[in-house]
Amino acid sequence: MQAEIVCVGSELLLGDIADSNTQYLARRLSVLGIDLHYSTTVGDNQPRLMDTLRRAIGRSDLVLTTGGLGPTDDDVTRESIAEVFGEVPVVDPQLAAQLRSFFALRRLEMTENNLKQASLIPSARSLRNVRGTAPGWWVQKEGRIVVAMPGPPGELHNMWETEVEPILERTGSLIASRTLKMFNISESRVDELLKPLTSGRNPTVAVYAKQDGIHVRITAKSTDRESARATIRPVEEQARSLLGDSVWGADDEVQEQVTAAALIAAGLTLAVAESSTGGQLTSMLTRVKDAPRFLRGALVVPDIPRTAPDIARLARDAAKQFDADIGLATGATATPDSDPPMVDVHIAIVGPSSPAEVLAAHRSRPFRVRLLSSYYALHELRRFLARR
Amino acid sequence: MQAEIVCVGSELLLGDIADSNTQYLARRLSVLGIDLHYSTTVGDNQPRLMDTLRRAIGRSDLVLTTGGLGPTDDDVTRESIAEVFGEVPVVDPQLAAQLRSFFALRRLEMTENNLKQASLIPSARSLRNVRGTAPGWWVQKEGRIVVAMPGPPGELHNMWETEVEPILERTGSLIASRTLKMFNISESRVDELLKPLTSGRNPTVAVYAKQDGIHVRITAKSTDRESARATIRPVEEQARSLLGDSVWGADDEVQEQVTAAALIAAGLTLAVAESSTGGQLTSMLTRVKDAPRFLRGALVVPDIPRTAPDIARLARDAAKQFDADIGLATGATATPDSDPPMVDVHIAIVGPSSPAEVLAAHRSRPFRVRLLSSYYALHELRRFLARR
Repeated sequence: MQAEIVCVGSELLLGDIADSNTQYLARRLSVLGIDLHYSTTVGDNQPRLMDTLRRAIGRSDLVLTTGGLGPTDDDVTRESIAEVFGEVPVVDPQLAAQLRSFFALRRLEMTENNLKQASLIPSARSLRNVRGTAPGWWVQKEGRIVVAMPGPPGELHNMWETEVEPILERTGSLIASRTLKMFNISESRVDELLKPLTSGRNPTVAVYAKQDGIHVRITAKSTDRESARATIRPVEEQARSLLGDSVWGADDEVQEQVTAAALIAAGLTLAVAESSTGGQLTSMLTRVKDAPRFLRGALVVPDIPRTAPDIARLARDAAKQFDADIGLATGATATPDSDPPMVDVHIAIVGPSSPAEVLAAHRSRPFRVRLLSSYYALHELRRFLARR
Repeated sequence: MQAEIVCVGSELLLGDIADSNTQYLARRLSVLGIDLHYSTTVGDNQPRLMDTLRRAIGRSDLVLTTGGLGPTDDDVTRESIAEVFGEVPVVDPQLAAQLRSFFALRRLEMTENNLKQASLIPSARSLRNVRGTAPGWWVQKEGRIVVAMPGPPGELHNMWETEVEPILERTGSLIASRTLKMFNISESRVDELLKPLTSGRNPTVAVYAKQDGIHVRITAKSTDRESARATIRPVEEQARSLLGDSVWGADDEVQEQVTAAALIAAGLTLAVAESSTGGQLTSMLTRVKDAPRFLRGALVVPDIPRTAPDIARLARDAAKQFDADIGLATGATATPDSDPPMVDVHIAIVGPSSPAEVLAAHRSRPFRVRLLSSYYALHELRRFLARR
């Protein structure tokens, strides 16, 4: 099956926003084993969009559109698909009722132009959009499939994962993959450790540098998921034994969740005090599903230079104020005379029966301090829990 | 002048990397007043690339390609352009000498396949690449211009800014734009209010729904920046009078910064207590450049259901603990019996000489609560300051 993407939106061609939808869909298609041949971005212009759609339908089995499903006059994706297939959009009473209840529930006024979001053509069935007002379209005609989805990434991802992918999953050859995640190790070091594995063809082993550390992706191709997974398993074991204890997680796991799971497993509660991380660390921890089970509370204090004893005191104060077993604090000092400017970030941890420890500073460029220090704090807390 | 972009690289269609070149070039073209009509991504596949190039040359005056200029066999941009124009690439002795010295300088071995990076066709002249080994091509033939540039963003930006833009700057007209930003008003309502303006051709007026509210973009075209701005001014005034006090900012302004500026102007300090927003609001406020000037500190407490008096108490407690003039708190209660589930978020504000006010709840889907409530808190704080 050959696919192509058509992204609709003048804001993309004015450079107002970056298109992240192509990469998202490209990855998802790749896992399904569907080849992506083209991705075209076109503005909110009906003749140009229709021209692009006609060509896409002519050469690809599956055409995915994103954007242009809004309520305003310059949203023309529905109209263009209808015209290319020679059909006329009609307001669907059920979709219109859903739209009215969407607005009523939010106590918002619904204007008449919203109604065009409730329209369908005979060859289309609607795709649920639980995150917005624009349903998608699944159009199947003349051996081609056109899937029209909204442009905002949150709406697109949800519609793709709940409505579109389940249908497409039943076709094509399969790719399975496994990602191992590391922190506090360099990309080139991982590359070196994995040399015995990276030249393989099936599975392939690739190393990526990401914000939360280094990822190693093992990918296998097969006709069914189970045999693809069986191809991956021995290579994953080899990789893990080469990488040792740098690996903190796999696949969709994130550091905050892995660290939270370690706290919950130990039956310990946490209080946070943030100086150099400005609320970023707490904001990550409160996104963990079970946050209220372990996170007693957090203090955010101004990001001014602090000494190691100051930061230890912050950790103790937070543990005391929120009556938590563990206090975790972040704080920074500028590195003298460095060009470009660098910052030393300290992490302090105080345990239920231990004095506050201030852990080896790590050095960072100022613009990366908040995120990187949050990851270091999570990393050090995991190590602290593992040592107990 | 009409332009289009052709991005070349299979890694883009596998989702391995995101394309940032389109947005970069789109912005630069927009400032030059050159209309961008399409951007197409195609893999390292000569037939598909040639097909895309033929169409681009057929419909656009200026075709910009990025990528596919490397030394390996799957880099086919040069070969494809040559074949589309019916010309044959030949190694240029001067380019070959430069390439050899590039490698010698870095004490690297130059392999024979690198030599194809030194090739030219009769209609092309080379564009200097000071950041890499692949020179670009400026091809002018049959009234069309094709500019072939490297894919790595650092190389592309440098070549664009030093070699390509100076030539293009002498042609075309200029675009200037102005964006007005609103909150707590729907896209369709803004669209309706601006009906008298949205059908204009110069300037154009377009409405976009963004995470931080609704944006209205007014764009004018002219031969010089000053007269483009003069075209925008009266339309901006009309738009502002139609939109009333929903407008909180313009252009690059963000809500946290506008709210912070209002606090600083009033000479007041702030303490925050977050329940439903989990640190998100503080994390936004600490990113403001002057945060330590007005933000005394923040408390983040678990996100459990809280009544209006609970939330008022949180605001008072934070103001007291951090000795701040104003306390601002967020908290939520579930909306009974709603399907899909909804949450009512309350914002409480306590001023230097006022009792705590708990402001009208707004309703939101759970997954949007954090960000939306942070914006509501900033919005209500601005209104509170304006009323004083």
